Amino acid sequence: MAELRKFVARHEALEPFFVGVDLGGTNVKVGVVDDAGRPMSWLSIPTKSPAGPEDAMQRTGEAVAHAIAVASVKPAEIARVGLGSPGTMDIPTGMLLEPPNLPGWENFPIRARLEHHCGHQVTFANDANAAAYGEFWVGSGQDLASMVMFTLGTGVGGGIIIGDLAVDGHHSTGAECGHIIIEMGPQARMCPCGQPGHLEAYCSATAVLKRTQEALAEGRASSLRTRMAGGEELTTVVIAEAAEAGDELATSVLVETARYFGVGVTSIMHTIDPDGVVIGGAMTFGGTTTTLGRRFLDEVRAEVRRRAFPVLAEKTSIEYARLGGDAGFIGAAGLARLAHRKQHRIGNVER
Amino acid sequence: MAELRKFVARHEALEPFFVGVDLGGTNVKVGVVDDAGRPMSWLSIPTKSPAGPEDAMQRTGEAVAHAIAVASVKPAEIARVGLGSPGTMDIPTGMLLEPPNLPGWENFPIRARLEHHCGHQVTFANDANAAAYGEFWVGSGQDLASMVMFTLGTGVGGGIIIGDLAVDGHHSTGAECGHIIIEMGPQARMCPCGQPGHLEAYCSATAVLKRTQEALAEGRASSLRTRMAGGEELTTVVIAEAAEAGDELATSVLVETARYFGVGVTSIMHTIDPDGVVIGGAMTFGGTTTTLGRRFLDEVRAEVRRRAFPVLAEKTSIEYARLGGDAGFIGAAGLARLAHRKQHRIGNVER
Repeated sequence: MAELRKFVARHEALEPFFVGVDLGGTNVKVGVVDDAGRPMSWLSIPTKSPAGPEDAMQRTGEAVAHAIAVASVKPAEIARVGLGSPGTMDIPTGMLLEPPNLPGWENFPIRARLEHHCGHQVTFANDANAAAYGEFWVGSGQDLASMVMFTLGTGVGGGIIIGDLAVDGHHSTGAECGHIIIEMGPQARMCPCGQPGHLEAYCSATAVLKRTQEALAEGRASSLRTRMAGGEELTTVVIAEAAEAGDELATSVLVETARYFGVGVTSIMHTIDPDGVVIGGAMTFGGTTTTLGRRFLDEVRAEVRRRAFPVLAEKTSIEYARLGGDAGFIGAAGLARLAHRKQHRIGNVER
Repeated sequence: MAELRKFVARHEALEPFFVGVDLGGTNVKVGVVDDAGRPMSWLSIPTKSPAGPEDAMQRTGEAVAHAIAVASVKPAEIARVGLGSPGTMDIPTGMLLEPPNLPGWENFPIRARLEHHCGHQVTFANDANAAAYGEFWVGSGQDLASMVMFTLGTGVGGGIIIGDLAVDGHHSTGAECGHIIIEMGPQARMCPCGQPGHLEAYCSATAVLKRTQEALAEGRASSLRTRMAGGEELTTVVIAEAAEAGDELATSVLVETARYFGVGVTSIMHTIDPDGVVIGGAMTFGGTTTTLGRRFLDEVRAEVRRRAFPVLAEKTSIEYARLGGDAGFIGAAGLARLAHRKQHRIGNVER
């Protein structure tokens, strides 16, 4: 991650330049990225979602201008802007539809309004697909020909990249990998989306905390109980640390999570058969660069070896993401670059 | 289906022409197809798999020449040949690896040998992906922008088409939709591939017959018992007929199958978000054109409405395939056409 946070200087940067915008419920990250995927500048502004989307897009437009100035670039040198946003959305028309994390932002023509406020053509994408494209372009997936990324955070998101195609779906709902069904029976856990048995209901940070609380409620011994009694908040970082230190309950939660996750990864491998799988999201970089740690990754790989076609288990790489919280804006810039290259028929199908 | 079996005459056909080859364990279907996806000729030869792949490819080469002659076309008017074959395979190198349905054909350079015997460049594809492309090009999916096809037969196969991309996978194992995991617990049924909980273990013809036999063994009343006592063989056609006639056991098997299937369809919809889902394979055209019948389709749709994101349940079409056993060779020809158009940069991304 370190070398990517080093900003490339204007005189070393490759033209043309792109701006990536990563819209979140709390912050908007904006950065200028060169043609090789290297950040040239970066800044973050609060989303202030209650003030509404028009206000946020106006301030985002200002942030884009600021990021361009900081990068010592002229606005005319920016080929295109990419915007990654939480759904639900309609990509062809550039509309936000009903984003649950941005209440009051319903049915907003976000692409057109950002174009208005920043003065550039905007490529619109799902935030998880943008992050996946960032990792594919210059992160963990840079040597892969195709890739599926799972983002483990409050929920479980996904991105599917096959060559120069980000699978955004015919109804702008592609790659919702957290909503693969891994359990169909009556014992299935309920997903926050309201349906039973989804991967997210087992593997999101929310689900991991819930399963840990359940295990603690059974009265099982654990160092977690002592830590919580001492006022510490239960987080996936704390659970991963406890597992690392040998806590049995924390370890069993971590291992179970990896096994559930391996089921979803296997289903994706049997349908997409990507070159590699990348695991990102706040759970993988929330505390340290590898919050879930080596053990989790090893257990995921073991479950996939048990469940997937042998040739796929052997040949498909499974790695953590590398760009951390930068994947979103870098990937949004990358998708803008992809659209620019397709429009102007620049180069072959490549990153 | 009827209008597609009518062969288009040479003077009405659109150039260039393609040959599609659909290699099966029992027969090889070979047909000439025009630029609009209309068959101009069609023939079938026995695979005679024990005689080995070289013998079969030599006779296939002769069949290609024969089909070309019957279509009143000159060999030089054929732009390319497409070959759909069962896996396992390595598409980039044109190798058959270890096809379970073609014992003795291991590690055979099938693409190069067919090129040698037919004198044309050959595009190599998985048979299920070829069938899916056939339906996408001129069948049930012809108005769709992207499509997932499930083939219900002895096993459960799949094909994923997104625009001009057939998702054949980085390790030539893409779109194995029968091997989505729908049940991860210890109660999961075993798939013939050796892994538990796969869609195929619940929804293939083999699985449906097994589940019916289990229900009969429980002693439940059913007209099926009488029919079998009368010497009739239990098949999915017989089960669908009995369900149609009101048999309770047959109906419950059919409805359960639809529900299991709907779980797999939902997972695919949440990951690919295709414009539509097409259900084909021998179970849908084995006896009549709609062996599984209206009831099965209605129940699949109902399960998807219960399980999928509302926007997808509402907007994603779910239909039976239309080309029956012709989908394979038409689709193989279609994939040859796609490769030809990409090579010569003809037209935009379109069918």
